[in-house]
Amino acid sequence: MVLLGIDPGLAATGFGVVRRERDRWRHVEHGCIRTKAGLELGVRLLQIHDAVSELIRRQRPDVMVLERLYQLRDGSTGLSVGQAMGVVRLAAEEAGLTLAEYAPTHVKLTLVGNGQADKQQVQFMVQRILGLPQPPRPDHAADALALCVCYLHSGLSRTKAGAAGPVAGPSRIAAALAEDERRLREHRARKAGGAS
Amino acid sequence: MVLLGIDPGLAATGFGVVRRERDRWRHVEHGCIRTKAGLELGVRLLQIHDAVSELIRRQRPDVMVLERLYQLRDGSTGLSVGQAMGVVRLAAEEAGLTLAEYAPTHVKLTLVGNGQADKQQVQFMVQRILGLPQPPRPDHAADALALCVCYLHSGLSRTKAGAAGPVAGPSRIAAALAEDERRLREHRARKAGGAS
Repeated sequence: MVLLGIDPGLAATGFGVVRRERDRWRHVEHGCIRTKAGLELGVRLLQIHDAVSELIRRQRPDVMVLERLYQLRDGSTGLSVGQAMGVVRLAAEEAGLTLAEYAPTHVKLTLVGNGQADKQQVQFMVQRILGLPQPPRPDHAADALALCVCYLHSGLSRTKAGAAGPVAGPSRIAAALAEDERRLREHRARKAGGAS
Repeated sequence: MVLLGIDPGLAATGFGVVRRERDRWRHVEHGCIRTKAGLELGVRLLQIHDAVSELIRRQRPDVMVLERLYQLRDGSTGLSVGQAMGVVRLAAEEAGLTLAEYAPTHVKLTLVGNGQADKQQVQFMVQRILGLPQPPRPDHAADALALCVCYLHSGLSRTKAGAAGPVAGPSRIAAALAEDERRLREHRARKAGGAS
């Protein structure tokens, strides 16, 4: 099972790819699709669409995980994010991917246990859960990985329409973290053993 | 020279096609691409994208004319219109079309001579200028035709980025209307002659 998290934006679209192998979650890659402000809007949208389509071809994800946006305070931002999100969603639909969507508060609640958690807390949890050597950067890529982790923690009963299953309880996340730490210790022990 | 005007929306995307032959402007077709509210958002965006791409293949326009939106009062509407506009713009870019964009007040000013003109006044002018037997319906299709007429009246010096040339003065529109009326009288005279 491969997940592709996307945090769409006109200037920067974050992406993160996570692979689930039985009970293990492997970080595959993350990064940012950037488009230049000086380019025509249509060209920028084409670049985003084609980069996401290329990611899909390369990683063959089963699910695309998106942030569910309800309403944006600033209409012009809504229009800009909306156009980027439109072409991202189109790329998913063209590839026949299942789509899962989570509200930002749901992601924070699932990862940190607090719907009002700040960016650093979320990034810290993403780093811990995926066993990354440092917090993922930039923010857009970290948000995309957080969406994947949220999906992994939210159970597997989802509809094609992206309705999420029950939120993982804190106990499940704690167990995941403990498992992750155990693996990290093993990894370090092997590495120390190999170096000596 | 063929123009494709598009008024994007998630539920209804209006379109209008106008052909310019020397000094004559011919109405080719207009209509509305509708998507059902019950469908998944990605499916609706795919339907809009594919319908616009199909229109482009069929009519082979030189230019796509869009409404320039700056800011929407309602963020959620911005997100919805934005996603539809994103896939429409993508279809234009994929086909290598030149894009022209006009603010709604520019369209009203060009067609009616008043940036605050109401929908009926704009529709009346579209009907007159294109010699239609009745005002174009529905509103979204009328708006798309108005965009084409606005382009026809705004001169031909445009950049690929869609910066519009000078607004046509009232005298030019008056001349166009007079020419249109003359042609209409001739047409009626021929029709009356043929029927007698």
